[in-house]
Amino acid sequence: MTLDIPKNSVGIVSAEKVLIDKPLTLACGVVLPSHELMVETYGTLNADKSNALLICHALSGSHHAAGFHEGDDKPGWWDSYIGPGKPMDTNRFFVVSLNNIGSCFGSTGPTSINPQTGEPWGAQFPALRARDWVESQRLLMEHFGIQRWAAVVGGSLGGMQAMRWALEHPDKLANSIVIASSMKLSAQNIAFNEIARRAIKSDPEFRDGNYLQHNTAPRRGLALARMIGHVTYLSDELMGQKFGRELRSGDFAQGEAEPVEFQIESYLNYQGDKFSGDFDANSYILITKMLDYFDLSREYQNDPVQAFGHANCDFLVVSFSSDWRFAPQRSREITDALIAAGKNVSYAEVESDQGHDAFLLPNPRYEAVLGNYLSRVADQLEGAV
Amino acid sequence: MTLDIPKNSVGIVSAEKVLIDKPLTLACGVVLPSHELMVETYGTLNADKSNALLICHALSGSHHAAGFHEGDDKPGWWDSYIGPGKPMDTNRFFVVSLNNIGSCFGSTGPTSINPQTGEPWGAQFPALRARDWVESQRLLMEHFGIQRWAAVVGGSLGGMQAMRWALEHPDKLANSIVIASSMKLSAQNIAFNEIARRAIKSDPEFRDGNYLQHNTAPRRGLALARMIGHVTYLSDELMGQKFGRELRSGDFAQGEAEPVEFQIESYLNYQGDKFSGDFDANSYILITKMLDYFDLSREYQNDPVQAFGHANCDFLVVSFSSDWRFAPQRSREITDALIAAGKNVSYAEVESDQGHDAFLLPNPRYEAVLGNYLSRVADQLEGAV
Repeated sequence: MTLDIPKNSVGIVSAEKVLIDKPLTLACGVVLPSHELMVETYGTLNADKSNALLICHALSGSHHAAGFHEGDDKPGWWDSYIGPGKPMDTNRFFVVSLNNIGSCFGSTGPTSINPQTGEPWGAQFPALRARDWVESQRLLMEHFGIQRWAAVVGGSLGGMQAMRWALEHPDKLANSIVIASSMKLSAQNIAFNEIARRAIKSDPEFRDGNYLQHNTAPRRGLALARMIGHVTYLSDELMGQKFGRELRSGDFAQGEAEPVEFQIESYLNYQGDKFSGDFDANSYILITKMLDYFDLSREYQNDPVQAFGHANCDFLVVSFSSDWRFAPQRSREITDALIAAGKNVSYAEVESDQGHDAFLLPNPRYEAVLGNYLSRVADQLEGAV
Repeated sequence: MTLDIPKNSVGIVSAEKVLIDKPLTLACGVVLPSHELMVETYGTLNADKSNALLICHALSGSHHAAGFHEGDDKPGWWDSYIGPGKPMDTNRFFVVSLNNIGSCFGSTGPTSINPQTGEPWGAQFPALRARDWVESQRLLMEHFGIQRWAAVVGGSLGGMQAMRWALEHPDKLANSIVIASSMKLSAQNIAFNEIARRAIKSDPEFRDGNYLQHNTAPRRGLALARMIGHVTYLSDELMGQKFGRELRSGDFAQGEAEPVEFQIESYLNYQGDKFSGDFDANSYILITKMLDYFDLSREYQNDPVQAFGHANCDFLVVSFSSDWRFAPQRSREITDALIAAGKNVSYAEVESDQGHDAFLLPNPRYEAVLGNYLSRVADQLEGAV
């Protein structure tokens, strides 16, 4: 197969496995003596190492954010926004994208071997918080010899990492870009995550999380979990436009007993089944828990203004009008707290009918907002060289 | 146990099993030669049998809508609205409440014995449409010798029956009261129902729907299905108020590995487990399909105005501000179509933070709307006597 690679693509890319040979103390108290991270980079690090962007992925993301893997015809998950001339412009920035620990695309996580037992970690992988991903990313930063990120960028759980970076390591980033995110999940968000986890655990093939040792996987449970997530990441409006009440099979004639299947049912079942072959169930449980546990200001007397008082960087906050899982109101709360804390913040509420998924999808206004902001960042960097 | 029965309760009630010994031809073409219905009535039928209200239940409802069963301390599901002096005033109306076919509280359904096989119907129970419930209710009407309902009343799927009655039997009801309902489900509604059905079918104890023959039940799948439904029937706001991010166990101290459980998780798991002991999984599949299939105007060239043109009764339409599963917009569409069809319609959009469940819960404005409307209906009846 020959692939026509678009001119504004970073082209064929490959991942590198980086061994972080330093201890990482997790928030739960467990110490990982070393860990491995799958990493991709796009663009060129400049001489003073000041032009690096860190990409933080969300629940199901990987290190493969842009370009094409050899032989693959689907680009990385944020390819619309990373590439030469794109908002995260690889002609100007050096983009670092990693798969975080606890996930399942090659970095240390539940599918890795626990050196102490010689078996896969499985459900025994330690509980994680967003701050643990930030600490692991800080060790990766040292590996590259970078002193300060030009920006840390992420959507959803990725935005939570971008905020956590600003509080934990105020001098190590110049900009925090927080997209379709929240300072904490609502009870409804937690409820959907808990149902997804329970779907996985209810599958007899889950076997208390030790399914790998039994050469099996809770695929039916994970498919259900994904279906629940998928519905909540789309808007009612978009689903109506895309699927309406169109039938895939059967018909409604009276006296007709053949079952009717709506297009939306077939689509969702397909999405669930596909995902359940690509993702690890223990990782899904672990990372949804990270989302639930995140609470930006818990350790700052529950005061977001006090929390953001520790930040030293500038902020861009973006939300999408039809996102009901991480609604614009959540981004306005972030923005208000930043303003009250006296920080520089730009906020854009982008019109979109794509729901939470909008942060991954092409959208001219979103492109303009992100592109203009980062182009100013690059101008400053290049002027200062 | 002695129970303090409130003065405005219908008191201790009991159900009657009514044999409908006439053939019922279902929309799918199957004929039930006879069927049984569990029925409760409250109040007294007047001499000319003109004061009867028909209560249509929704997905998980039963015939037990008001009062107390002997030895039980929880009243029927619509007890807030049915009783002496309540909006459905049993001093003035004769209220008929039944468990519909396909459900699981004693009426003919998947847990009944199929006379042709001597085994429970299970998943072989024929597919149902809202019109089938209406036809069965019409046979029950004959059983009582009632010529015309003073009103047919229902919320959610119950409202769909109230609308279907108005189109199919225009001369057999004086009023149709349609609460928190819709002329058809959206793709998002169907998606949530399909995930619920898949949760049930994914449970190995489902055994292709023949679980009763194996003395088992897909309880884990049904619990999940209920949890999904439950979250979507509540509003984000209410869940935030009731549960917020409060913990049931664990704590967030760093270095603490004990798992954290939020109150909302524990609440939902409890609701799911409780329901899965009370309801039948095949009924759940059957009735969610009825919801999905309902499309008021499918057989009227997809024109709601043309559909409602067949109606002869007056209408009351009620919606609740925080109901996102059957949003106020759906009720406004019903109201607009009724107005365009030249019908008498009253519409009330009631402020509530209770989500879709609001139609079951006490609410002064809702009580006033329903009470005033039905009191006028009773005045007319009594004046005409």
